Amino acid sequence: MGEFDLIQRFFQRPAHRSPLGVGDDCALLAPRPGMQLAVSSDMLVQGRHFLPDVAPRLLGHKALAVNLSDLAACGAQPLAFTLALALPHSDEAWCQAFSEGLFALAEAHDCELIGGDTTQGPLTICITVFGEVPSGQAILRSGAQVGDDIWVSGTLGDARLALDALQRQHMLPPPVLAQARQRLEAPTPRVALGQALRGIASSALDVSDGLLGDLNHILHASHVGASIEVATTRPLLAASHHPLLRAMASSRIDACTLAGGDDYELCFTAPHAQRSAVAAASQASATPVTRIGTIEAMPGIRIFGPQGERLQQRWPGFDHFA
Amino acid sequence: MGEFDLIQRFFQRPAHRSPLGVGDDCALLAPRPGMQLAVSSDMLVQGRHFLPDVAPRLLGHKALAVNLSDLAACGAQPLAFTLALALPHSDEAWCQAFSEGLFALAEAHDCELIGGDTTQGPLTICITVFGEVPSGQAILRSGAQVGDDIWVSGTLGDARLALDALQRQHMLPPPVLAQARQRLEAPTPRVALGQALRGIASSALDVSDGLLGDLNHILHASHVGASIEVATTRPLLAASHHPLLRAMASSRIDACTLAGGDDYELCFTAPHAQRSAVAAASQASATPVTRIGTIEAMPGIRIFGPQGERLQQRWPGFDHFA
Repeated sequence: MGEFDLIQRFFQRPAHRSPLGVGDDCALLAPRPGMQLAVSSDMLVQGRHFLPDVAPRLLGHKALAVNLSDLAACGAQPLAFTLALALPHSDEAWCQAFSEGLFALAEAHDCELIGGDTTQGPLTICITVFGEVPSGQAILRSGAQVGDDIWVSGTLGDARLALDALQRQHMLPPPVLAQARQRLEAPTPRVALGQALRGIASSALDVSDGLLGDLNHILHASHVGASIEVATTRPLLAASHHPLLRAMASSRIDACTLAGGDDYELCFTAPHAQRSAVAAASQASATPVTRIGTIEAMPGIRIFGPQGERLQQRWPGFDHFA
Repeated sequence: MGEFDLIQRFFQRPAHRSPLGVGDDCALLAPRPGMQLAVSSDMLVQGRHFLPDVAPRLLGHKALAVNLSDLAACGAQPLAFTLALALPHSDEAWCQAFSEGLFALAEAHDCELIGGDTTQGPLTICITVFGEVPSGQAILRSGAQVGDDIWVSGTLGDARLALDALQRQHMLPPPVLAQARQRLEAPTPRVALGQALRGIASSALDVSDGLLGDLNHILHASHVGASIEVATTRPLLAASHHPLLRAMASSRIDACTLAGGDDYELCFTAPHAQRSAVAAASQASATPVTRIGTIEAMPGIRIFGPQGERLQQRWPGFDHFA
């Protein structure tokens, strides 16, 4: 199957909301009056962002999910995306499964494929996603204020726990691995929560490289520091509640929740006075949120143990070239 | 040098026209009222789109040029772009040279880098570019009408001639190779011509996979056919005018001009009544154009030799999986 047949068969669907979709030199987008366009681009490389044996259907889901997660962090509503795909060879079964996973998530968020590129090369996926946000209302990294609460959505660390098990760094009981692996391979972008937090959160980002490293981006952009309590973060590792893993060492839990990566949860800050508004946004979007710490004036992140003692261990964030 | 230092040092510049540039989860774009946003995405893979030993400065130019060429084909004015980059390792000298070539072309077109992604992997470059076009005025592939003239900008085939020489399929005299190689490694996106053709051209695209293959996209989209005269296309191979290559076989010239690829010229159609307007657009944009044929009702492309004889040879277009 040639390049153009492959595009037509698996990656060309009529555009409904955009003036022009796949098939011309450019696609056309027309944001509504009063709206800004939020844009994010992520590249996924085999062996780096996903294992060679991952199911292509899950990979299609994840490739779009990590981009929708960036829109969620800004409070934007998904509109459309482009897909650039390098494939080692023209593989119809792979494309079929990949496109099913991709479009299932796209349709759930009413986000349409409007263009892209297909080429031969080492398996690489680059999606650029577009969302709408009312002018001036995007949630940025730079808005955190001293005294704000620090929140995270959902659960943290299970993706890392699963990755370490799949890479044979430790063993997990099969039912625990299956549950954690779901978080690694099919993350849930917190799109509804992000939109519900507009006007409430003072800053936000999505946790992709580990909580502490990503929180640091907010702190740098906002010129503030933070304190975090592990009594609030440790329960966020879903696997730690499993009967088979009740005795998991706290050091291992902290490594996963504080510096795991691949979580695609939102970390956000909001003034103390917005606690009930945060709770309402959580309920409206059916997304649990947990308060894990406080923004402070002193730069850096201070981490406190269950008895209020300061923990001194370092958990570096993920860096592709470190 | 780590991932975030590398981004900050080589790929982070203040955004002037966009509300938010590099450094948050999303960038923000705000098209002016009455404007649509034209979007195009191209992925370049080492060994497929460029040779491993290409100068990184030229690669930076070309990676953006091929995307600007798509905006040109739609008649859009460049605004901004995102860059997703997979690098085998953190190479400061490479990033320095690549970013110089990239930003030199970006600044020449007032097109700013607003976001992207950097990761480790086989050298792969994915740029998504954004341009503005007045609503409803984008030049599409689907507008060609029977009787329209077919035009191309600039020269055709020299990139292919150079590529074949670099891959040792034939020898070229060094000064000829140097000239042709310039076309392969530093193509000129026809941005000003594309905008000047709004309201004049009935259809357009950029020639990247070979003239005939790309023209076929216009013909399919417009439900028409075409005739082409090689008397008009053969002189478009610049190298064929070189004193050292005067005796070049016409079959070789046709292979380069009709099916060469990597030209990044515009192929467009316009009604006979617009000939003087096309000439004016050519002059206003300082971009030569050549009339090479006519749109006809009968599907397919018919190619005629210098004596009006029908040529029967086939020149397949480039297909990444053929």
